[in-house]
Amino acid sequence: MDPRHAILFEPVPIGPKTLPNRFYQVPHASGFGSIKPRTQAAFRAIKAEGGWGGVCVEYAPVSRDADEVPAVAANMWDDDDARGLALTAEAVHAHGALAGLELYHGGASSLNGESRAVRIAPSQLASELRFASLAKEMTAADIARVQRDWVEAARRGRDAGFDIIYVYGAHGYLFTQFMSPVTNRRTDGYGGDVAGRGRLWLETLQAVRSAVGGDCAIATRICVHGADGLPGIEIDETLELVKMADDLVDLWDLTVGSWPEDSGTSRYYAEGHERPWTHRVREVTAKPVVAVGRYSSPDLMAEVIRSGAVDLIGAARQAIADPFLPRKIAEGRLEEIRECTGSNVCILREEAFNHVGCVQNATAGEEYRRGWHPEVFSPAANPDLAVLVVGAGPAGMECAVVLGRRGFSAVHLVEAEAEIGGRLRWTRRLPTLGDWGRITDWRAVQLGKLPGVSVITGRRLSASDVLDYGADIVVIATGSSWRGDGVQPGRADRISGADAGLANVLTPEQVAAGKRPGGGSVIVYDTDGYYVGPGVAELLAGEGFTVTVVTTFPVLSPVSDETLEGEMLRADVHRRGIGVRRGLTITGIEAGSVRGLDEHGERWSARCDGVVLVTQQASDDRLYRELTGDPAALARAGIQAVHVIGDAVAPRIVSEAIFDGHRLAREIDGPDPSEPAPYRREPPDLASESYERG
Amino acid sequence: MDPRHAILFEPVPIGPKTLPNRFYQVPHASGFGSIKPRTQAAFRAIKAEGGWGGVCVEYAPVSRDADEVPAVAANMWDDDDARGLALTAEAVHAHGALAGLELYHGGASSLNGESRAVRIAPSQLASELRFASLAKEMTAADIARVQRDWVEAARRGRDAGFDIIYVYGAHGYLFTQFMSPVTNRRTDGYGGDVAGRGRLWLETLQAVRSAVGGDCAIATRICVHGADGLPGIEIDETLELVKMADDLVDLWDLTVGSWPEDSGTSRYYAEGHERPWTHRVREVTAKPVVAVGRYSSPDLMAEVIRSGAVDLIGAARQAIADPFLPRKIAEGRLEEIRECTGSNVCILREEAFNHVGCVQNATAGEEYRRGWHPEVFSPAANPDLAVLVVGAGPAGMECAVVLGRRGFSAVHLVEAEAEIGGRLRWTRRLPTLGDWGRITDWRAVQLGKLPGVSVITGRRLSASDVLDYGADIVVIATGSSWRGDGVQPGRADRISGADAGLANVLTPEQVAAGKRPGGGSVIVYDTDGYYVGPGVAELLAGEGFTVTVVTTFPVLSPVSDETLEGEMLRADVHRRGIGVRRGLTITGIEAGSVRGLDEHGERWSARCDGVVLVTQQASDDRLYRELTGDPAALARAGIQAVHVIGDAVAPRIVSEAIFDGHRLAREIDGPDPSEPAPYRREPPDLASESYERG
Repeated sequence: MDPRHAILFEPVPIGPKTLPNRFYQVPHASGFGSIKPRTQAAFRAIKAEGGWGGVCVEYAPVSRDADEVPAVAANMWDDDDARGLALTAEAVHAHGALAGLELYHGGASSLNGESRAVRIAPSQLASELRFASLAKEMTAADIARVQRDWVEAARRGRDAGFDIIYVYGAHGYLFTQFMSPVTNRRTDGYGGDVAGRGRLWLETLQAVRSAVGGDCAIATRICVHGADGLPGIEIDETLELVKMADDLVDLWDLTVGSWPEDSGTSRYYAEGHERPWTHRVREVTAKPVVAVGRYSSPDLMAEVIRSGAVDLIGAARQAIADPFLPRKIAEGRLEEIRECTGSNVCILREEAFNHVGCVQNATAGEEYRRGWHPEVFSPAANPDLAVLVVGAGPAGMECAVVLGRRGFSAVHLVEAEAEIGGRLRWTRRLPTLGDWGRITDWRAVQLGKLPGVSVITGRRLSASDVLDYGADIVVIATGSSWRGDGVQPGRADRISGADAGLANVLTPEQVAAGKRPGGGSVIVYDTDGYYVGPGVAELLAGEGFTVTVVTTFPVLSPVSDETLEGEMLRADVHRRGIGVRRGLTITGIEAGSVRGLDEHGERWSARCDGVVLVTQQASDDRLYRELTGDPAALARAGIQAVHVIGDAVAPRIVSEAIFDGHRLAREIDGPDPSEPAPYRREPPDLASESYERG
Repeated sequence: MDPRHAILFEPVPIGPKTLPNRFYQVPHASGFGSIKPRTQAAFRAIKAEGGWGGVCVEYAPVSRDADEVPAVAANMWDDDDARGLALTAEAVHAHGALAGLELYHGGASSLNGESRAVRIAPSQLASELRFASLAKEMTAADIARVQRDWVEAARRGRDAGFDIIYVYGAHGYLFTQFMSPVTNRRTDGYGGDVAGRGRLWLETLQAVRSAVGGDCAIATRICVHGADGLPGIEIDETLELVKMADDLVDLWDLTVGSWPEDSGTSRYYAEGHERPWTHRVREVTAKPVVAVGRYSSPDLMAEVIRSGAVDLIGAARQAIADPFLPRKIAEGRLEEIRECTGSNVCILREEAFNHVGCVQNATAGEEYRRGWHPEVFSPAANPDLAVLVVGAGPAGMECAVVLGRRGFSAVHLVEAEAEIGGRLRWTRRLPTLGDWGRITDWRAVQLGKLPGVSVITGRRLSASDVLDYGADIVVIATGSSWRGDGVQPGRADRISGADAGLANVLTPEQVAAGKRPGGGSVIVYDTDGYYVGPGVAELLAGEGFTVTVVTTFPVLSPVSDETLEGEMLRADVHRRGIGVRRGLTITGIEAGSVRGLDEHGERWSARCDGVVLVTQQASDDRLYRELTGDPAALARAGIQAVHVIGDAVAPRIVSEAIFDGHRLAREIDGPDPSEPAPYRREPPDLASESYERG
C-alpha cells in the first residue's frame, strides 16, 4: 500500500460500533429491496468482501403509507421483511463490515402503488412530481404513528442484525418536507421556525436512539443545500439543525440538493462537487461525517480525509463500479480500479424499476443469480483453444478481458481502426462526454496485463482472413453504425431524399470523421432520444454552425431524464444557443430544406444546409453472416464456433454491449454459449400459509 | 332471469373442454402475475364465483427474453412459476369455470428489465416505444428456441391445471411483429407474403396443439385491424390468416388496433365500437369466437350473441367493475350491475405497475390481502349505532352503501346540494365525460334499496348541526375544491393577482356554476395534468370562447397517457380549435393578461380576458376540524367517533375517494378505523434454498 493511503484504513468508532476503515457504501437502490433477499445479500456482501467497512441497503420504508411500488424498496413492515433482510446483515458481517439500514418515509413523495394508502405530508400542497393527487396534512395522531412505526422498524432492524440504523431526512422525503418552509406551513409546533420544522426529525431521532441506541449506531442523512438546492433548505438552517441533533447522532450522512445534483453525472458535475456544502458541517460537529463525491482517485480520497472535514469516503456508484476498490488500494493495485464513469446507467436502470446494472462492472447484481464475482473467474474448461475476437469496441474489449482472466492462452483481439474503443473513440470526444472514456481506458490497461491476450489494431478482417486466422473460436464484435438511409422508428416509409452519400445528409459517424454540410445551418434530427443527438448538436454549435435539434419526442432526450441529466442537458443545449423543436417528424429532405409532419399530422418545413440523421442504428453483422452462412468453410478452417456479441447483435447502450461480451466469456465453455444460461430466481413463498379462497 | 338473456347461459364447447356459459374474462393485467400467486388466485376466483364461465390470467411470458419487468407478468419460466399459478387454476375450477393461460412473447416490445436479455424481433428496426435500443433480428435458432419455450410453457400450464392455452398473437407483440410487413422485412420464409409472415404463429400453434391439444383448448388472440389499426395489419390478411389457422384453433380471441383503441375509454369510444372489425371474422370461421366491447347491458350482450358473429362475451374492465355481473343477470338483479365507467383507472394503475384498482369496485384486488368480497359484507359489530355521513360525493355515497350492507340500521347521508354526486355533479357534464356519471347512478340506486340508509339532500350542516344531529358516529366526506388563490405545485410563491373573487380569475367549480370572463379570450392554466383542465377548456370552447391551455407539463394531460387517452384527448382538443402551450409557468395575472416563465426561466406573457386556474385543490375539511377541535362538545353530544374520508382527507382521483369510503365502512367496527388495517402480503420464499454467499 502507498503510505499516503494508509489514512483510509483507520478504524472509525460510530456510537457503540466501530467501522473497520473509512470506506462506506452509502444507502442506494438496487432493484432488490426486500423482494429479492438473497440477491440483495450477495450484492451487498461482495462490497464487504471488497473492503468497504460499512455497507448499507437501500431505503427501507417504515410505514404502509411509505410504499414505493412500483419502485423496489427494502420494506421493513413486518417480521417477514426482517427475516429476509437479515440475510444481508449476516453476509456483510461475514466479511467484517458493518451493515446499515436506511429507515425511510417518503411523505408526499411516496407512491403507495401497492398499499393504496393516502400520502401524508406536513401540509397539503400539490407536488410537481405526483400530479392530479395531493397528500393529507398530517394530524398529531399521524405524527405519533409514524414515530411508532419508525421505532418498531428500528427494533426489527436491530434484531435482524443491522449495526447502523438511519433516520433518513434527505432527498426531499418526509423530514425534508418538514424542514423546508416551502412545504411545511404548519402552525402546531411542528412548523414555524427552524426548531419547529426540525422537531419531527429530532423527536424521531430521540425515539429511535432510546429504542436501539445502546445496540446500534444512529445515523441520519440530511441535505446540505447545494448549488441548485432543495426549495427552502438553506445551509445556515441545516447547520443549526446539526447542532440541535448532534447529541442524538453517531454518524452524519450528507447529501446536497435534489437527486440530480446529489447523484450528479460526470457530464455536468466534477468529482467532489459537493464539498463546498458538505464540508461546512464540520464547523458544528465533531461526530463522524460521511459524504459522497463520486471519488475514484485514492489520492483525492486521502486528501479529503486529511482535510478533516469528513471521516468517511461515501460511495454508491463507485462501489457498484468496483466493489473491490478498497482492497485494490490496500494492495497497491491502483491500475486495476474500475473507475465509475458517472454516466448513471445504474440510475437509468433503477429509475425504470429494473434489476441494477453498471456499465463498468457487468457483475453488479449478478452475484447471486448468475454466481458472478467481479474479481474471481472460473478457469475455462477449454483454455487452450485459440480465440479470435473481431472488433475492440466495448463488447469485444470486455470479452477479451474476461477470456484472459479465465485463463485462455491465445486470445487475439483484432481491431480494424488504429485505436481500440469502438464507438467510444468518437463519443468520448463529444462535449461533456470525456469521462465515458474510462470504459476504454480501464480495459486497455487490463488487456495489457493479460499474457494470454494480444491486441492487434489497424487490421480489418474479411471472412477469408478470419477463416485463415487459425482460430478455434471466433467472436464477432463488429458493432453497429448509424443508418443514413432514412429508416426511422415507427414509420413504414423512409425519409425521402435521405442518403448519407449526399453532401447535405450526414450520419453521426460521418460528423465524427469530419464531414460537414456546405452551409452554416444544420438540423440534427433525433428520434433516438439519448446522448448522440444533443452531443452532435453541441459539437457543431461549438464550431459555429447554427444548429436546431428536431425531435419526435415531447422533450429533448427523454432518456436523459432517467439518468437524472435531462434538466442539465436541456439547459446546456439552450446555453449553447441550440434551438429545439419537439414533437416533429421529418419525412423528406431536399437541398436546402426539410419537411415533415407535426403531432397532429399537419405539415411543417424548415430551411437548412444539412441534416444529421440520428434516427436509428444498424448492426454491422456482415462478417458474422458471411461466416455462419458457410458452415463447410468453417469446418474446413477448424473453427468450432462463431459467436456474436454487442451491437453486432443489436445496437444498444454501451452497458448492454459490455454485459453481452462479459456474459459470453463467462459461459463460452457452457453447453450453449449462444443463449444466456438460466439464472436463479427468488420465488414467492407458497409453503408457509395455506391458500384461502377469497 | 329475463328469458331474453337465457342465450347468455348456454354452454360453449371449445376443443376438449366446455365453457359453462358465454361470459368470458379475457386475459388482462392485474399487477399480481406470478409474484403474488395467492392474490392472483383470489382475484380470478371471485370472477368464477360471480359466474364468468372462462377466467384467464394475464400475459404469461414463455422466455427469459420476454421479461416484462418492471411490469408484472405471469411468468411461466419454470416449475416454481407453475406451482404458484396452479393456485389460480384450482381456485377457478372450484367455481366450475375454465381457467385460461395467455402464453406470451413480446418480441421487440419486451422490456427485459430483470433478465437483461437482448430483445428479439423479426427485423432489426427501432421502436418508437423503446428508444435508444434496438432488437436482435431473430435467427433460425431463435425461432426454434421460442417455439420450444412455448411448448414447454404450455406443458407447464397444462400440468398446473389450465384448461385453455393461448398462443398470443395480438397487441403488437411478437407474432404481430411477424404478421406486419412494416416490422417484418425477412426474406427467409418467415417473411414476405401473408403465409410467410404468419408462419411463426402457425408453426407455434401447431406445436402447442401437438403438445397439449388433447388436454387443453387452444386459443389465440389476434388483431383484426380497427379504426386506427396497427401498422401493416389489414383486415383482409387477418381473415386469410384465420382461414389458414382455423384447424389449429379452438377459440378465437379478437382485438382491434393498438391498446388505446382496444381498451378504448368511454370518452372516445362507444360500447361495442370493435364490432365492425371483430364481427367480420365469422365470415371465415365456425369456431367459437370471443370479442370484447366494454358491454355492460345484458340486452346488448344477448343481441351480440344472437347476431351469431361471436359466441362469447369477452370482458376485462367490466369483469373488474363487477365480478358478479353474470350471476346478477341470471338472477334478474340487473339494477345491481356495477357498470364499468370506461375511465381506465384500472389501466392507469397497471400502466404505473401498481396493484390493480377500480373506480366502481373498491374490492378489486383486495380479495386475498384484505379479505374483501364484492357482494358479501360482514355484519357490523355495532349496527345499532346511528351514523351520520356528511357529504354525498363519491366517498360518502360509497361509505353509506357499505354501511347499509353491513347492517347498520340508521345511516343518514346528508348532502348540502340539491343533488348527490359531489364533484361528479359537474364533471359528468363536461364534454366526453358523461359515462363517469355511472359512479353516482349505481350508488343512487343501491342507496334507495337499503332500508337502513336515508339520503337527505339540500341540507348544509354546521358543526352545531352535527352535534345536535343525534349521531353516534360521524363521517365527514365534505370533499375538496379548486384553489383560486394562486398556490401551485413546486413553487413557494403564489401567482400574483390570482384571486377567484375577481372577474377575470375563475376556478373550475366557478365555471361549472356559470361564471364566465368578461371577454372572449380565455387561458386555462393546467398544473394538474388530468381531465379537468382539458374538460373546462372544451366546455368553454364549445360556448364560443377562444381558449388556450397553458400547462407546465411537456405534454397536455400526462395522466391521460396512462389511461391510454392521451393521443385522443390531444387530438380532440386540437379538433375543437383549442390552443396548447406547454412547459410554461404562470407567475402573475393582470386585467387582460398573464405573465410567467418558460422552462429556461425566461419571461413570457400573453393577452387574455380571463384565466381558469386548474392549479391545485384543497380539502374542504373545516367541519372536521371544528368538530375534532372540541372533544368536550363531541362527548356532550354522545358522539363516539368522527372520521374523515375521501377528498376531505386529501384531494385525489375519484377511485381513491371511493376506496377510502369503502375501507372505512369495512373497518368502522375495528380496533382503529382511522388507519387502514394491515393486509396480508406474499413474501419471498426463504426456506426452500439455503443462502449461498456470492
